[in-house]
Amino acid sequence: MPRARQTAGDIGETRLLERIAERLPSPPRGQVWAGDDAAVLDPPPGPMLFTTDSLQEKVDFDLELARPEDVGWRSVAVTISDIAAMGGEPHHLVSTLGLPPDTEVGWVDGFLEGTLAAAREFDAVLVGGDLGRAPAVVVCVAATGSAERPVLRSGARPGDLLCVTGELGGSAGGLRLLQGDAFPGRTDPLVERHLRPRARVTEGVALARAGATAMIDISDGLALDLWRLMRASGTGCQVEPADLPVDPGLRDVPDATELALTGGEDYELLAAIPERRLEAARAAIDGELTVIGTVTSGERLLGDKALDQEEGLGWDHLLTR
Amino acid sequence: MPRARQTAGDIGETRLLERIAERLPSPPRGQVWAGDDAAVLDPPPGPMLFTTDSLQEKVDFDLELARPEDVGWRSVAVTISDIAAMGGEPHHLVSTLGLPPDTEVGWVDGFLEGTLAAAREFDAVLVGGDLGRAPAVVVCVAATGSAERPVLRSGARPGDLLCVTGELGGSAGGLRLLQGDAFPGRTDPLVERHLRPRARVTEGVALARAGATAMIDISDGLALDLWRLMRASGTGCQVEPADLPVDPGLRDVPDATELALTGGEDYELLAAIPERRLEAARAAIDGELTVIGTVTSGERLLGDKALDQEEGLGWDHLLTR
Repeated sequence: MPRARQTAGDIGETRLLERIAERLPSPPRGQVWAGDDAAVLDPPPGPMLFTTDSLQEKVDFDLELARPEDVGWRSVAVTISDIAAMGGEPHHLVSTLGLPPDTEVGWVDGFLEGTLAAAREFDAVLVGGDLGRAPAVVVCVAATGSAERPVLRSGARPGDLLCVTGELGGSAGGLRLLQGDAFPGRTDPLVERHLRPRARVTEGVALARAGATAMIDISDGLALDLWRLMRASGTGCQVEPADLPVDPGLRDVPDATELALTGGEDYELLAAIPERRLEAARAAIDGELTVIGTVTSGERLLGDKALDQEEGLGWDHLLTR
Repeated sequence: MPRARQTAGDIGETRLLERIAERLPSPPRGQVWAGDDAAVLDPPPGPMLFTTDSLQEKVDFDLELARPEDVGWRSVAVTISDIAAMGGEPHHLVSTLGLPPDTEVGWVDGFLEGTLAAAREFDAVLVGGDLGRAPAVVVCVAATGSAERPVLRSGARPGDLLCVTGELGGSAGGLRLLQGDAFPGRTDPLVERHLRPRARVTEGVALARAGATAMIDISDGLALDLWRLMRASGTGCQVEPADLPVDPGLRDVPDATELALTGGEDYELLAAIPERRLEAARAAIDGELTVIGTVTSGERLLGDKALDQEEGLGWDHLLTR
């Protein structure tokens, strides 16, 4: 058994894959998970969902600030969040990990632990993956899922209420804390919020059943994701920044509302819900559901600011100017 | 419309995604492909296959040697090759592309063109993806598929014949040509073999129907993939290197057999087939099927060399010692 302080380059792909395989769950009879060319699975019932997301070191996470368990967790949670945003339940995951050969084997152990913990938490299973060399750590996760009635971005109608689950801005606040005082392993709730995002799967399923007409997960900040939802629906909106459910951990932070609007990475859900279904939706989800505005047939308004184009509303991963 | 000589960082993620979206195919009624949080699909019939693979710049390809169309094609072909190795047909693909902001928009156009061309060639559709920033180009593709009767690595039985489709060593020969005489756009068949690998989908389906008992795609060289197939089946083998179908383009290359054994990236299929099914298998596939040896209950022998461990038989992506 290779020691955790050895590096990936010391033991090589073959032995590292064996080490990983030992810790993967076993499939039920008739299925094949890791170990063959592809996994063999029962297809999901009803409409199938399929999505992918990736995390890049120094862009999406910093190895000085995030434990390996956090990177694994996050890679799964952000991908499953896309399934949650359709009102769906995740089923199967595949994960590819690219890493520099001087990465310690113990780091890979921790990454796998976080990956498997998040999969268990959101009721999905890791059924395969790929391991390779890269100049910096990179993770891609793809997920399948299913939804009785997938909730698209395009179904919002004028008059619907715009609602968000949970609280906003906490992830950006946690990142700020981490960057000002780098200390892996902090348990401050804001830091946890940043390092261990939660995919709102049960909330998404409940909102779909309660009659949500459109839904998106808030990954790039409320302002940008609101704009995307309204553009897909061909509608306007009136949202009051003062009504946003700002994370209580930000109560002493002067620009807390700005963090809630543009900080991103909260992975809460933004849903359009017909007014008559609001109480059913509130009752269906185990947690907060906050009305932040209404869908209109007019302009897209955030307070008195018109959202007339996507650019500049939130984080753009590529823009350099 | 952004110009091809502009960079990804000039126009940003939002406009680059719009540029990509314009060129994606449209889904049939009732399905959603790119543009929402996740794709909405009809689940595949029968046993579902699920796999992923990734390509990293400077590890798996070199931007000086491969056109962007080649990188896109290759990312799809190597992933679908895993579906072919199960005797399956691919259905849906998602692709994540990480790239440095100074990548030209025209490069991304070419990458997408190659991705879509390979998807069409192997009868699959690109239904989603993700775009992000990375220190070097990295691509991950995940694929779903289905197989009436998935052919695992573990089903080979003593007495079965070991057969390979097509020819081996050509990809490694093409890489050698490219590295000795860097010239993008060469049309030498060996270079094409390296830059544009083919997934043996029709061959895999035909071999499964003809009764193949075990199958694997030859991605890391015949020696290593043979070892993997025999280990998974718990069997031995006797394979004669002299019987390998060496690529005719290597006829003047002194170490052609070595390239066929360990060069890798040929993406041909290695299958175990009961002797009585050989003629049916030969008739079913449109191309060469070469018997290279037999499955035994004894040692794993390649000529007079015993394959007693996996390490050292082929390429290990991580090993540095």
